[in-house]
Amino acid sequence: MYRTHNCGELRAAHIGQEVTLSGWVQISRDLGGMTFVDLRDRYGITQLVFNMDDNSDLCSTARKLGREFVITATGIVAERASKNPNRPTGDIEINIASMEILNESKVPPFTIEDESDGGDDIRMKYRYMDIRRAPVRNSLIFRSKLAIETRKHLADQDFVEVETPVLIKSTPEGARDFVVPSRMNPGEFYALPQSPQTFKQILMVAGMDKYFQIVKCFRDEDLRADRQPEFTQIDCEMSFVTRDDILDTFEGLTKHLFKAMLDVDLPDFPKMSYDEAMERYGSDKPDVRFDMELVNITEETRGHDFAVFDNAEHIGGICAKGIAADYSNKDLKNITEWVMRPQIGAKGLVYIKYNEDGTIKSTIGKFYDDDTLNAWKEKFGAENGDIVFIMSGEKEKTLKRLNELRLEMGRKLGLMDGKVFKPLWVVDFPLLEWDEDSERFHAMHHPFTAPKKEDEARMLDGDHETMKSLKADAYDLVINGAEIGGGSIRIHDRALQQKNFDLLGFTREEAEDQFGFLMGAFEYGAPPHGGIAFGFDRLCAVMNGQSSIRDFIAFPKNTSGRDVMIDAPSRVDNDQLQELSIALDIKEDKK
Amino acid sequence: MYRTHNCGELRAAHIGQEVTLSGWVQISRDLGGMTFVDLRDRYGITQLVFNMDDNSDLCSTARKLGREFVITATGIVAERASKNPNRPTGDIEINIASMEILNESKVPPFTIEDESDGGDDIRMKYRYMDIRRAPVRNSLIFRSKLAIETRKHLADQDFVEVETPVLIKSTPEGARDFVVPSRMNPGEFYALPQSPQTFKQILMVAGMDKYFQIVKCFRDEDLRADRQPEFTQIDCEMSFVTRDDILDTFEGLTKHLFKAMLDVDLPDFPKMSYDEAMERYGSDKPDVRFDMELVNITEETRGHDFAVFDNAEHIGGICAKGIAADYSNKDLKNITEWVMRPQIGAKGLVYIKYNEDGTIKSTIGKFYDDDTLNAWKEKFGAENGDIVFIMSGEKEKTLKRLNELRLEMGRKLGLMDGKVFKPLWVVDFPLLEWDEDSERFHAMHHPFTAPKKEDEARMLDGDHETMKSLKADAYDLVINGAEIGGGSIRIHDRALQQKNFDLLGFTREEAEDQFGFLMGAFEYGAPPHGGIAFGFDRLCAVMNGQSSIRDFIAFPKNTSGRDVMIDAPSRVDNDQLQELSIALDIKEDKK
Repeated sequence: MYRTHNCGELRAAHIGQEVTLSGWVQISRDLGGMTFVDLRDRYGITQLVFNMDDNSDLCSTARKLGREFVITATGIVAERASKNPNRPTGDIEINIASMEILNESKVPPFTIEDESDGGDDIRMKYRYMDIRRAPVRNSLIFRSKLAIETRKHLADQDFVEVETPVLIKSTPEGARDFVVPSRMNPGEFYALPQSPQTFKQILMVAGMDKYFQIVKCFRDEDLRADRQPEFTQIDCEMSFVTRDDILDTFEGLTKHLFKAMLDVDLPDFPKMSYDEAMERYGSDKPDVRFDMELVNITEETRGHDFAVFDNAEHIGGICAKGIAADYSNKDLKNITEWVMRPQIGAKGLVYIKYNEDGTIKSTIGKFYDDDTLNAWKEKFGAENGDIVFIMSGEKEKTLKRLNELRLEMGRKLGLMDGKVFKPLWVVDFPLLEWDEDSERFHAMHHPFTAPKKEDEARMLDGDHETMKSLKADAYDLVINGAEIGGGSIRIHDRALQQKNFDLLGFTREEAEDQFGFLMGAFEYGAPPHGGIAFGFDRLCAVMNGQSSIRDFIAFPKNTSGRDVMIDAPSRVDNDQLQELSIALDIKEDKK
Repeated sequence: MYRTHNCGELRAAHIGQEVTLSGWVQISRDLGGMTFVDLRDRYGITQLVFNMDDNSDLCSTARKLGREFVITATGIVAERASKNPNRPTGDIEINIASMEILNESKVPPFTIEDESDGGDDIRMKYRYMDIRRAPVRNSLIFRSKLAIETRKHLADQDFVEVETPVLIKSTPEGARDFVVPSRMNPGEFYALPQSPQTFKQILMVAGMDKYFQIVKCFRDEDLRADRQPEFTQIDCEMSFVTRDDILDTFEGLTKHLFKAMLDVDLPDFPKMSYDEAMERYGSDKPDVRFDMELVNITEETRGHDFAVFDNAEHIGGICAKGIAADYSNKDLKNITEWVMRPQIGAKGLVYIKYNEDGTIKSTIGKFYDDDTLNAWKEKFGAENGDIVFIMSGEKEKTLKRLNELRLEMGRKLGLMDGKVFKPLWVVDFPLLEWDEDSERFHAMHHPFTAPKKEDEARMLDGDHETMKSLKADAYDLVINGAEIGGGSIRIHDRALQQKNFDLLGFTREEAEDQFGFLMGAFEYGAPPHGGIAFGFDRLCAVMNGQSSIRDFIAFPKNTSGRDVMIDAPSRVDNDQLQELSIALDIKEDKK
């Protein structure tokens, strides 16, 4: 037997008991006659005491214990002279009578502490030591508990978890698929699912009524920071429901998870249309923890001979409260440079500094006199002491840049409290986006999303311009500026689905080849249905006020898609490729 | 709103209420003035009544409802004149006042009944209609509940569910890997995991202490009936444990699942060594629901001038109780032919028929007189009225054939009661198997399995013959002759792991290339650990007394690895292949 207790559970009540603990040596301190060892496992840290007077051989061995050695030790629980109130086991220590080294350890390449001295790369290579650190370990335990809570809650509401296949069919729509050559079907490939979308719809046609799955999905995209080729979704679908049935169900799930995991009572989630979100925040995933909303002053700026504004489609700004006194010219220069970085792409940044003393300083003072600028105050909700920032240009781009500026100012001014959670539903997205370059429509959500009921007739009969104005019965759950989930009511009618494929530029043959099984299913009694998927990795991060999903994934890949610990991907034997009826075909520029 | 209730929940207590139901038309019966529609959803069937006198238009529409039409209908719950006691909703019916057809259905290609008229192929192609059938639907719901129960039980015992990656590294050991070309790393491939074995061991080195995961695994094998390229495991690993800690934990899980799902109290699981299982049953997964154990009569048969027996390494048999009177010569001929089929491969079958009247009829009466044959009775536990079947040959093959014969007789004699569950642990497997053909050892379990503690020194120092006698600290859970799970205590010491790879014929370079990360991890404080994996699909089937896993998988593949519903695998574009730096290379004989 390796242990009677774990390293986190002994208390004053155990004093006098003989116990056996096993774990890792966090630190060994030699204080002459006594050696103290902090023994760590997943559950906590307990202090072991070795006494030179009682057993000099044992104490000598203990002195030589290196960091991360694995030991098992037996002794009597004793009251600690100097208690450690910061540690649940801090009232006691163990006077060790016998000890065995179960495994030694080389010196770890970084410190196994909450704040490690290891860089990202080395922590990933030795992920097994990184996970021993409490922040990473606790993130993985949080994830596990969140998954259980999710499953219990959904199962209690009659959702059935159905495992959909991982080896499915490649479809050129959307992101790139990972593909898997089929040995038994030479020349043919499976694809890994980007989501179980069509399968969950098939399950609705199959009468499963309420489906969910916590499921791995795959996208072969160029990886930006914080994107992973494999990621996890809480995937759901329901039959005989309207939009609000789905929103109520998953608002309920979200509230339950915040309460169960964080003891946070979320307020009811407001609904905001996509159009309103874009106008007020320049984003379809607004962070509504703080105001600083976008203000449209296009009309107000016209006719003052300021060509930049007069020629711009849109002029808008935000008001940063109470920063005029503290914001130096250098700060203004910095924020101007920040919006002009290629990632944001603004041509410049106009500011109006409404000083406390009533004076105004502005980069557009030449064109707009103080009376005019003072007149704008009301529109911005500005007072003396505030600074208004203004950008201009093409409407869509300007709104997006203002959104970036707003978020940056929110960060700088400490308006994004990690302990505050502000959820909302963004609804009524456009159904289709017209892409000028390819001269075709793209699905804003995906090709299975239904138009809003009132737009159905217009979709079937309307002209090209009508299509641009169609609204989808789609919705996103946004919390603190992060898109946690999204979904829609689906098309369940073959004719409407066919029309959508037509609009999206599928030939009839392509549509039939790729999604014929689904359209076929719609002919055998498909119920009205809809669903939603939550990004599980992202939900974990947002609930913990973290911006990165990395530590909520046990074995993440780097931005080249590599697992640096196991060194994957890797070469495979030619024999294996031959069996799969494929050969390498590496272009020169990739070598 | 599509419904106030589902089709399974209305009772006499609801009489008089107005309700709205939605679902599928199971059947519509026109009885002149009245039309009765059985409306079905996942939860049950409710009878709708349309009355010609009340609303002739509506009733006329109802008459035209085809099978599997999807409708929503509103009406008043009424007491049924002729109640249907076989249906939970059988006390009531709904007098329908309004109805809408939500979707029509073509005539289904097979009947949506418990016993369908559809063959396997057509049911797979239209799986969305097959799942509407109660047996399939209930199998999937059972699976979902079993998964939840498993998770709740393990989480309550501090197990953490950790998702291990799906895109990992190919290793030529074991079964074939499915591989995934990496676009970002030309010429390199990921592999899909055959199990999360190395990752769960890494998690133990990482201090996670108790890990589990219900996880998809993949094997590119030639598919026999009832094998799937993707399958699901309950995968577990624990640190600081001995074998019996693991057996106790998972015996506890198994008992819990049988109790929670089936209200069955399993007895304590006996432990049987591999050697004993082979001697008594000729199988390492014995079905112990019935006796009919194998009897070794090698010694007894010698020296009677029967060359077949005298030259055989092993002579053994089984005793089938009480069948002598009913078993005709034709039956004996049939069972003889059965064991001589190539799948079994016996050269022949000897029988001794101990008739009720004390006479004996036997195929070896020429060589063994009645006194001799009567003397064997005690050894076989045979009485008058029994038949003893005997086979001879190479020991291992003979035991396996006797096992097959025993199971076949058990089936024929109805000794395999689907409602009786007889679990046992088979333990102390050989560590290594010597393969004469390739002149190398194979790991009986896998290369990470530890020898039994007492065999460790012999493994490090012993000679070639010693290696054949090493026992592994490995175990299988067997229920009713099905292997439900298996596992082992793992090696956690670099030197021992290296020795095992040496024995298995890995060069040092191969071992380092494929498993260097794991051996490296063993140098940084690896705790003693072990684990187990349950075949989840199989567990579902066995608990339901089913021999096939097919209906516990929502979308199974056929024996060619095809999903005939979505028609996968399939061709992909050349552009896509080029991006992946691969080309097709189909050999003529595969075309």
